[in-house]
Amino acid sequence: MRLSKLFTSTSKDAPADETAKNAQLLIRAGFIHKEMAGVYSYLPLGLKVIENIKTVVREEMNKLGGQEFLMTSLQRKELWEKTDRWDDKKVDIWFKSKLQNDTEVGLAWSHEEPITDMIREFIASYRDLPAYVYQFQNKLRNEVRAKSGIMRCREFLMKDLYSYSKTEQEHQKFYDVVTKAYLNIFDQVGLGDITYFTFASGGAFTQFSHEFQTLTDAGEDTIYLNRSKKLAVNEEVYNDDVLKQLDLKKEDLEKVKAAELGNIFSFGTTKSEQLDLYFVDEKGKKQSAVLGSYGIGISRLMGVVAEVLSDDKGLVWPENIAPAKAIIINLGAEQEVTKAADELYESLQTEGIEVLYDDRELSAGEKFADADLIGVPYRVVISNKTLKEDKFELKKRSSQDVELVDTRGIIDALR
Amino acid sequence: MRLSKLFTSTSKDAPADETAKNAQLLIRAGFIHKEMAGVYSYLPLGLKVIENIKTVVREEMNKLGGQEFLMTSLQRKELWEKTDRWDDKKVDIWFKSKLQNDTEVGLAWSHEEPITDMIREFIASYRDLPAYVYQFQNKLRNEVRAKSGIMRCREFLMKDLYSYSKTEQEHQKFYDVVTKAYLNIFDQVGLGDITYFTFASGGAFTQFSHEFQTLTDAGEDTIYLNRSKKLAVNEEVYNDDVLKQLDLKKEDLEKVKAAELGNIFSFGTTKSEQLDLYFVDEKGKKQSAVLGSYGIGISRLMGVVAEVLSDDKGLVWPENIAPAKAIIINLGAEQEVTKAADELYESLQTEGIEVLYDDRELSAGEKFADADLIGVPYRVVISNKTLKEDKFELKKRSSQDVELVDTRGIIDALR
Repeated sequence: MRLSKLFTSTSKDAPADETAKNAQLLIRAGFIHKEMAGVYSYLPLGLKVIENIKTVVREEMNKLGGQEFLMTSLQRKELWEKTDRWDDKKVDIWFKSKLQNDTEVGLAWSHEEPITDMIREFIASYRDLPAYVYQFQNKLRNEVRAKSGIMRCREFLMKDLYSYSKTEQEHQKFYDVVTKAYLNIFDQVGLGDITYFTFASGGAFTQFSHEFQTLTDAGEDTIYLNRSKKLAVNEEVYNDDVLKQLDLKKEDLEKVKAAELGNIFSFGTTKSEQLDLYFVDEKGKKQSAVLGSYGIGISRLMGVVAEVLSDDKGLVWPENIAPAKAIIINLGAEQEVTKAADELYESLQTEGIEVLYDDRELSAGEKFADADLIGVPYRVVISNKTLKEDKFELKKRSSQDVELVDTRGIIDALR
Repeated sequence: MRLSKLFTSTSKDAPADETAKNAQLLIRAGFIHKEMAGVYSYLPLGLKVIENIKTVVREEMNKLGGQEFLMTSLQRKELWEKTDRWDDKKVDIWFKSKLQNDTEVGLAWSHEEPITDMIREFIASYRDLPAYVYQFQNKLRNEVRAKSGIMRCREFLMKDLYSYSKTEQEHQKFYDVVTKAYLNIFDQVGLGDITYFTFASGGAFTQFSHEFQTLTDAGEDTIYLNRSKKLAVNEEVYNDDVLKQLDLKKEDLEKVKAAELGNIFSFGTTKSEQLDLYFVDEKGKKQSAVLGSYGIGISRLMGVVAEVLSDDKGLVWPENIAPAKAIIINLGAEQEVTKAADELYESLQTEGIEVLYDDRELSAGEKFADADLIGVPYRVVISNKTLKEDKFELKKRSSQDVELVDTRGIIDALR
């Protein structure tokens, strides 16, 4: 994409009411737009990042046998009454509205109830299980406060996976598979080194749920971390009994702030029983299915990457999720320089390498500053000087080193 | 995808309260699930169709210079008050809700207002125009009645494109480009022959808007059609003056039912003025931008295809949007037959051809009936008989002719 054509532009300042670093950077770089507190739209560069994260996650979900589908935002009150989660006193983040005939409807903050009700129609026998289904869905949560940028939103994109298993063992096996897949995902998006498998409260169904917590002072959670074991315990379940059970010692634990990127939990058979999800087993006996639920906050993940992988010049995107592989900067007023930059831009597009091309009439300083702010992995500069050697200047966003390479070298580096 | 693994299945009956043919077929074939009247979720096969339609539309939008982004469902009341479209007496399909602090919010039934407000931040000079932006967004509309299946929903997927132009001429030129792109899209999804450019009411801003109406008795619109000119007039503007203006004669027009798949309209500069979208022109003079708005109902398009291209056996998907290219049916109880079917399934996957594989233990009759109901373009049968000749039986869903071909022939036909 030529920056002269891109309808967004960078700006020096973020809105005065925006206090979160991730949102400040993403707004200044033209990735997101603030609609209201906790509600952000995704501009072209931001949407690319979101789609790239979805691609990474989708591949892992398909590998473990997940089938993608898409539920609705509008939800029926009756379903949530069956599990006692309709009442605003029980779930305090509902957005609700009404049909013209005054029937109350809920706006999706989660999907366990409608998905379990839907899957009921396809599950009769043990032969129909296990079933693993997932979606990328907009979630609406009526948070009282929303001051963490896209790390805690009133509207956000989530990947939610649900497993329906015949037995507790079958469920546990899949739960472990998902755990590995999640760690793979956080590796691929550049957060593997600072993301920890964390024991958290299991709620009414099991002793523990598990979270994937990424270290950042901007996080809203406090965890107790054992770095060498790559394990942590959420403050909410941090006590002597739990430490003993997990064979962890107080003196080996570090108290740190973290942001929850993913969480996985077991519902046991309770939800199936509340919502009438039964199957007939090998012996002809009626059984209730074991339900697991596995979330990743897709837009939150983008926010955490912006928060922790950025520097004082701007964003620093990992290659897998960057909105483009490189930015070409044309520094020449001369026609030959522009011609060479145009040709490189076209060659890279032909090779299927996504690049930004700063073809605007701005100073070198302004172009360099914007390239750093936008933060794609590579910068390719062409000027009168580099053209004389028939080369380009190649620099990684995350490094200071500059090298001179020809077109072939650029293509090889970016592919 | 192996049908033995797919969590959905076909069914003989649709829900008793489902009167629309498109939804009956799509539910029976396992493409969609009814959450409530006018609210449907997309199961794996249905989501594939939706994504394929999006791909066709996205390519055309990118070709005309559109930049994809994504707005939010939650919307600010103030923006819609500025254009006098907040009041339920003015717009009677709002879903509304409230933040915890009692601030009213709207749920997106359209996006002109928030998009125009957003783009204001990036438009200052004539150099920033024209701008063409589009999204695929969930729309919520509180319809009183919703009895047309996915052809009229309370929640549905729409592609909406917006153009901001410097002058009326620049706007008109783009309007014509979009018209051609829309006709291309309807061609590619198999509806080109029965979709007509239609003059409709322009509302407060222009004399006419334009619709793309597809002939079907299930449609909610009545249009007057001139087949030879490939033009129609919506009943709402059908009168002697309009006919004269469009050089159409009553005796050449046919009164027919149709479904509106797309509509395009001009807002002039009114909305820019209401929402303070100004730019400075070449002469340093302040001007308001000319706004155009261009929609395609993505899920409605799927519904119309299901409605008009189906037959008494089930769905008939055009190749471009089918959930798979073919379905392989294994009719052999013998191991060799299954082995050959497995091998074909793997070869096709290696070639990047998406196929369904009916590997279930069912009768030939049940498998044929399901293949017809699901309606992918090709059916490939392998049995003891075909295996003896080292061949497969290939048949188009839309034809009765069967031919015997080898693996190479199957790959060539499906690629």
